[in-house]
Amino acid sequence: MVDGMQMEIKELVKQLAELESSKMYLDDFLLTWDRSDDEIAAVFKTAEILQNMRQNNISTRVFDSGLAVSLFRDNSTRTRFSFSSAANLLGLTVQDLDEEKSQIAHGETVRETANMVSFMADVIGIRDDMYIGKGNTYMREVAGAVSQGHSAAILEQRPTLVNLQCDIDHPTQSMADALHLIRFFGGKENLKGKKIAMTWAYSPSYGKPLSVPQGIIGLMTRFGMDVVLAHPEGYSVMPEVEDVARRNAEVGGGRFTKTDSMAEAFAGADVVYPKSWAPFSAMEKRTELYADNDMEGIRSLEKELLMRNAEFMEWECTESLMGLTKGKNGLYMHCLPADISGVSCERGEVSASVFDRYRDQLYMEASFKPYVIAAMIFLARFSNPSEKLLQLLERDSKRVF
Amino acid sequence: MVDGMQMEIKELVKQLAELESSKMYLDDFLLTWDRSDDEIAAVFKTAEILQNMRQNNISTRVFDSGLAVSLFRDNSTRTRFSFSSAANLLGLTVQDLDEEKSQIAHGETVRETANMVSFMADVIGIRDDMYIGKGNTYMREVAGAVSQGHSAAILEQRPTLVNLQCDIDHPTQSMADALHLIRFFGGKENLKGKKIAMTWAYSPSYGKPLSVPQGIIGLMTRFGMDVVLAHPEGYSVMPEVEDVARRNAEVGGGRFTKTDSMAEAFAGADVVYPKSWAPFSAMEKRTELYADNDMEGIRSLEKELLMRNAEFMEWECTESLMGLTKGKNGLYMHCLPADISGVSCERGEVSASVFDRYRDQLYMEASFKPYVIAAMIFLARFSNPSEKLLQLLERDSKRVF
Amino acid sequence: MVDGMQMEIKELVKQLAELESSKMYLDDFLLTWDRSDDEIAAVFKTAEILQNMRQNNISTRVFDSGLAVSLFRDNSTRTRFSFSSAANLLGLTVQDLDEEKSQIAHGETVRETANMVSFMADVIGIRDDMYIGKGNTYMREVAGAVSQGHSAAILEQRPTLVNLQCDIDHPTQSMADALHLIRFFGGKENLKGKKIAMTWAYSPSYGKPLSVPQGIIGLMTRFGMDVVLAHPEGYSVMPEVEDVARRNAEVGGGRFTKTDSMAEAFAGADVVYPKSWAPFSAMEKRTELYADNDMEGIRSLEKELLMRNAEFMEWECTESLMGLTKGKNGLYMHCLPADISGVSCERGEVSASVFDRYRDQLYMEASFKPYVIAAMIFLARFSNPSEKLLQLLERDSKRVF
Repeated sequence: MVDGMQMEIKELVKQLAELESSKMYLDDFLLTWDRSDDEIAAVFKTAEILQNMRQNNISTRVFDSGLAVSLFRDNSTRTRFSFSSAANLLGLTVQDLDEEKSQIAHGETVRETANMVSFMADVIGIRDDMYIGKGNTYMREVAGAVSQGHSAAILEQRPTLVNLQCDIDHPTQSMADALHLIRFFGGKENLKGKKIAMTWAYSPSYGKPLSVPQGIIGLMTRFGMDVVLAHPEGYSVMPEVEDVARRNAEVGGGRFTKTDSMAEAFAGADVVYPKSWAPFSAMEKRTELYADNDMEGIRSLEKELLMRNAEFMEWECTESLMGLTKGKNGLYMHCLPADISGVSCERGEVSASVFDRYRDQLYMEASFKPYVIAAMIFLARFSNPSEKLLQLLERDSKRVF
Repeated sequence: MVDGMQMEIKELVKQLAELESSKMYLDDFLLTWDRSDDEIAAVFKTAEILQNMRQNNISTRVFDSGLAVSLFRDNSTRTRFSFSSAANLLGLTVQDLDEEKSQIAHGETVRETANMVSFMADVIGIRDDMYIGKGNTYMREVAGAVSQGHSAAILEQRPTLVNLQCDIDHPTQSMADALHLIRFFGGKENLKGKKIAMTWAYSPSYGKPLSVPQGIIGLMTRFGMDVVLAHPEGYSVMPEVEDVARRNAEVGGGRFTKTDSMAEAFAGADVVYPKSWAPFSAMEKRTELYADNDMEGIRSLEKELLMRNAEFMEWECTESLMGLTKGKNGLYMHCLPADISGVSCERGEVSASVFDRYRDQLYMEASFKPYVIAAMIFLARFSNPSEKLLQLLERDSKRVF
Repeated sequence: MVDGMQMEIKELVKQLAELESSKMYLDDFLLTWDRSDDEIAAVFKTAEILQNMRQNNISTRVFDSGLAVSLFRDNSTRTRFSFSSAANLLGLTVQDLDEEKSQIAHGETVRETANMVSFMADVIGIRDDMYIGKGNTYMREVAGAVSQGHSAAILEQRPTLVNLQCDIDHPTQSMADALHLIRFFGGKENLKGKKIAMTWAYSPSYGKPLSVPQGIIGLMTRFGMDVVLAHPEGYSVMPEVEDVARRNAEVGGGRFTKTDSMAEAFAGADVVYPKSWAPFSAMEKRTELYADNDMEGIRSLEKELLMRNAEFMEWECTESLMGLTKGKNGLYMHCLPADISGVSCERGEVSASVFDRYRDQLYMEASFKPYVIAAMIFLARFSNPSEKLLQLLERDSKRVF
């Protein structure tokens, strides 16, 4: 490795060392607003260092053995590969837990399964975003179970939980999105005052989770950004998360406002994030219907929601809307996959020409997720992460021989 | 690592070196009663050493590459994770073989598949416990096929087979159970004379395998224990395995008796292991019906068995039964998952308060399985295991950097 | 390692260094006829070196981390294990991509998925052999997508594609087959003038891919072999690949002829490769029916094809046909699994006694595939492969500690 690169990485490590992140050690990453500003910054910094090391062919394999358990309660190619990439980057082997929902539904079984899969697990990644009030609760149940198992000396190590998307937050997505913005604008300090429009968009599909818009307003407000949440009437997100956004904006010197006009949100925006989601109240109702096993009710709710969606087909991110953004070239973001009009559906969240123009940026946005996950794991497993990263530099093992 | 720990491990290795286990080298682990007392002791010792090393952050990665093939003919989260953990601890990568039963049912295909998956396999773990007369036979067929392939220079190495549960024995379970007892009573020598009650228990489900009770009576009798097998009339296990238990008891200075009273079995017991299983004769009949593809017959047999089970609902491990055990606090064991009354079913194998009181012990019992599997693999792959373990100590690679 | 072995490996490496294979670096392996004679020879040589190293317990782990993405559009135990073994031998972790066909069917999604799974991928193995005109096209689409992603700095590395079977070629199979012949006849130079009969054979199943016969005639013609393609009328392979075979034969000093008589093909053959496949024209029709979603049409085509197959049940590799081969003991080859008369079906591609006599050779033939795949990966990832192999020799890490 050229000396310049090594000095650059050492500078980043020095910056990491100045951040107070000690409480992340042996802890989980469940919601971004559970974590301090320094801890959030430490994740970005560690992700950047790991990426720099990999780009310079320095192995960041810190585990010679150990499992990363993946527990996905719905299908997800992207998140699966991100988690798998992060685990592999650090030397952990992914073992999927594919139990039927019914098998891990009640208390006794959660406790038991959590322990049974964790004897040699350093990490558990969970994705459970289908039902309001369930996903995050389930993660905390698993966290409690492995804590208990560790205290009782059943588990030699207490695995770290990483929230790979729940009903409330999608921290690995929002953190990757934020890292993309930091890179795009050349530094976290440059996010201050930038306007980001998190807006609802039309989709012909049903019941998309709320965790992305919630994750975005919950995180971006803390960087002093001007965050606007836009959606048609009736498409509210969880009130608790709006409260988080408001508090963050106050503390961080930013703004959090709401509107029911996509155009108003786009006006002068530096960044737009148009994405479909289901109304919170409808998702709550759906959870109840599901609990009652009322399949007839679920079908009629679905029909009703699709009809309601169809009233708002003009909520599409078009070229003319993009023309309202700052300098007519605001940054378009999406967590992917997007519903692209005329490509993946007749009418969708975004017009093909807008999507096409921003494709490289969208893929770049996604590319940060494996590093963000790896950073979350790294900070949770090492008591002195900056020292450990320096030791990795000194070890100088190559990723590719 | 502190010096004390290193000396402790060296002492364990010294004890291992005194055991005659050379016949395990390049051999399989299919039935505990195929193995000598020294070989059984070598598995316990090696498991303890591997666990000690991991607890002291010494990497036990002995394979830089190599596959561990898993061949599961029914679903099993627990066994899958145990096998995966053991493979990972030693540096092997698990590759699942998920062929349909039909594809590997007949001779030609077993031979071919066994070779095709073994070009770079050091281990094959098989679980096949569904049909009497089939599982263990299948394992021996695979063993024969890879031996043949190795002799013909097709396979560069002859992979080791580990029985992860068959119709006859469940050696990784019974060995983990025994290691739990050794730890609980502070040494294998302390098992002498201890009474263990392996008893049938009521379950509302159908057709649970016999391999656990058979594995327990076949193994525990050799430590000089007083083994009592209790079940209602008609719930006999395989006569051959009862013979094994009787012979072992004779040789090892223990006892093997039978009773049809749960209370009698529990009376004064140091350890109780209440667990449901299907009658051997019914399982034999089921295998025949399956061979004849007589689905109607299978359904009526199932109905009949569930009705017969229901006659013995009082075979539940309750607090009052536990009161009959030695000092009223005999150790409760189970291979998990248990059918817990009022929790996972209305009436089951054990009452909730008993299960609850022993939960930590039960999880601890399960925690030994990955190490037992790893030890079986280790002893089969290294001609001088104690020397190799000392070399691992000297190498002193860290599991976590 | 004994010194003799090390000298032998060094000699092989020296031979590799003399071959011009620099264009394989960072390139894909999609069709054997895309590659020069030196490149083909480099794959054989590298495969031999990797095998020699493994046999002498020298670790060939060149990746400390990194993913090998497997994208299988149909089931395949054998190819899955070969790819998995090759990845593992080099230190890569396999991550399966199991998207439904529909999800990756259209352009936008191929581009997106290809990038999303490749952030940390060094290799992508694809098997897609079901539809004429589709498989290879799909691979080139994926190749284009990751090239684009790499140019746009989205992907830190541009993963190498390995064709694990498409509609046109099956290069890992034909290369393994060729390596088997090289070993069997004691050197590539000894293939010159040897007669190989690639003949159709009867099978009671429907729609077997054409990639094996095409791969064989496309590859074996370049070693100066006398390649005869035999099939009943109407069972032609792709005309473009016949052209490739003809050109190769001309350049390489061999022969490519066709016949509709199995006996004629077998007469005096050094090697026979009898295997069923579907007629090219019928497969083209099937692709169209599938595109039109004409399930009725597909069913009737299937019926028609099975009836046509049944007219040629005498195309079976029997002992009497084997009696026509050179010295009555020509080498029988097959990619496995074979349809064996009286074993896996009533009447099939080969009689049981022929298959039985050649079983060890058939398994040996298959054993080269993992090494061939590993060699393709190795040559694509290292700019100076022979130097890197010498460094591996010097490093002298053990595969098994």
